[in-house]
Amino acid sequence: MDVYIVSDIGGTQIRVAAYDSRNIELVNQKKIPTQAQGQLPIERLIALIEGVAGIHTIKAIAFGVPGFLDLKNGIILKAPNVSGWTNYPIVQILVEKFHVPIFMNNDANLAALAEWKYGAGIGHKNLLYLTISTGIGSGVIVNESLLEGADGIAAELGHITLLPDGPLCGCGHRGHLEALSSGTAIRNYVIEQLNNGRDSMLINTPVLDGNNIVQAAQNGDLLAIEAYQRAGKYLGIAIANFLHIFNPSIVVLGGGVIQAGELLFSPMNSSLLESIAIEEYIQNLTITTATLGDDVGLRGALALLLLNIS
Amino acid sequence: MDVYIVSDIGGTQIRVAAYDSRNIELVNQKKIPTQAQGQLPIERLIALIEGVAGIHTIKAIAFGVPGFLDLKNGIILKAPNVSGWTNYPIVQILVEKFHVPIFMNNDANLAALAEWKYGAGIGHKNLLYLTISTGIGSGVIVNESLLEGADGIAAELGHITLLPDGPLCGCGHRGHLEALSSGTAIRNYVIEQLNNGRDSMLINTPVLDGNNIVQAAQNGDLLAIEAYQRAGKYLGIAIANFLHIFNPSIVVLGGGVIQAGELLFSPMNSSLLESIAIEEYIQNLTITTATLGDDVGLRGALALLLLNIS
Repeated sequence: MDVYIVSDIGGTQIRVAAYDSRNIELVNQKKIPTQAQGQLPIERLIALIEGVAGIHTIKAIAFGVPGFLDLKNGIILKAPNVSGWTNYPIVQILVEKFHVPIFMNNDANLAALAEWKYGAGIGHKNLLYLTISTGIGSGVIVNESLLEGADGIAAELGHITLLPDGPLCGCGHRGHLEALSSGTAIRNYVIEQLNNGRDSMLINTPVLDGNNIVQAAQNGDLLAIEAYQRAGKYLGIAIANFLHIFNPSIVVLGGGVIQAGELLFSPMNSSLLESIAIEEYIQNLTITTATLGDDVGLRGALALLLLNIS
Repeated sequence: MDVYIVSDIGGTQIRVAAYDSRNIELVNQKKIPTQAQGQLPIERLIALIEGVAGIHTIKAIAFGVPGFLDLKNGIILKAPNVSGWTNYPIVQILVEKFHVPIFMNNDANLAALAEWKYGAGIGHKNLLYLTISTGIGSGVIVNESLLEGADGIAAELGHITLLPDGPLCGCGHRGHLEALSSGTAIRNYVIEQLNNGRDSMLINTPVLDGNNIVQAAQNGDLLAIEAYQRAGKYLGIAIANFLHIFNPSIVVLGGGVIQAGELLFSPMNSSLLESIAIEEYIQNLTITTATLGDDVGLRGALALLLLNIS
């Protein structure tokens, strides 16, 4: 049988699936940890692809990887979560190994593609996808195409400056959306306020994470509530910016932080409404949550492959 | 002869040109003030179109207008500079008058289209155009198409929030790029500082405008220099945001304020460089000034017409 191989390469896990190339039915699927003693991530990826393909003939491979990618040259510029993958010519390595067409894209771009093709965004022509997690990832569908830009590094919406001289982002710059509204930003704000002597039921929590901050907020803890209000406020301003920029008909929100629900959405909606220049930006707009689960990366890679192979 | 009619409708002037539909050569061109006693702007527009077309047969009309437009329904939602043009069904009015295909777009979108097809951006696939004038207009070419969004109100880059709680924008919201880096913003900042008692050679200037602020800055006036530094700083942050969002290969800057040259460009370039997450955003990037002059609106309308008629 001829198969298409798709993969979702994360900092923690590598997922690989094989699809029958005639009817696009799932044939096999496996996941393994990305890092292991004595083996490079690329060796683990290749072994997993070979294992999942088994006796079948690979016709094409598509994969997603987090980070900044040079799509034109198939190079990972910077993948902070996979050690050694800086200026890494991954597409060339896989072409030399498998001798088939290889398609790569950013994990958040593929999640946008997946939600558009198979999830919450079916039927829309202009879609904005944001995943609010440890960081903030994003992908944009503009007029039925994935926004990639001249070098493939467009749609990095987590790294727009919302508050000059604001808190430090993981990328080293200040005041980015990711530094204001991500899970990390919420946690950092709580820690900073606790260090400033703020009272909170979180004071003696040994390991602060999203779960116990949400729980504290739900129990009425003012600091925890404030942390989500702050994140939601800037998220709303950012989304208003993106409405002015892209005028999408749907915004799809994913990622663990949105589990906080109204703690985040209520301040987000308020600041979004306050920030739009004209009402038409929201008149025909749907704001919703992502519907695809853990396989969103594989579904996105499949969508990418099918878009390019046909 | 069959002719295509193109028009650039501004708050001050209406320009109309006729092109031979066979070889796209200019046949006739005129301009008149938009407003006049006892005549509606639409009457003046129609009369000018008829005058410019003369004995020739009109085959199609394209025009640009400043403001928020509903492209799907051919309605001007809000054109602050033309009185009476709010929720104004201009396309329907012109169709009923001329019985030919009518194409409309925002003036800044058409300027982007013109610079891409005939000006500084020829050959690029991803272009960002900003005109820095009384306000800030913008248009974006994404993968060889004009960015319009679901309702035609995308690419309003002047109205992104850069500084929450910052100065008031013409649209009624705070901290927009237009409220920080436009000609109006520069002037307002000087006035505000003078009112605060700041010393400056501009103190006794009867009517402050861009010309005398530039002149004062060139003569070493610290307040005037600071006004351009502030505008340039936020413009640089905004452009960095747009690079992360669109990853264009060229940024084209137009509008009267860029006549200030290095007074604006030097702080703009500094903050742009400081604000990008990775160097690849500027490695293959050209930042340049617009090359089309006063006819940019007519050329953009012509480009729009030719894109839609073929």
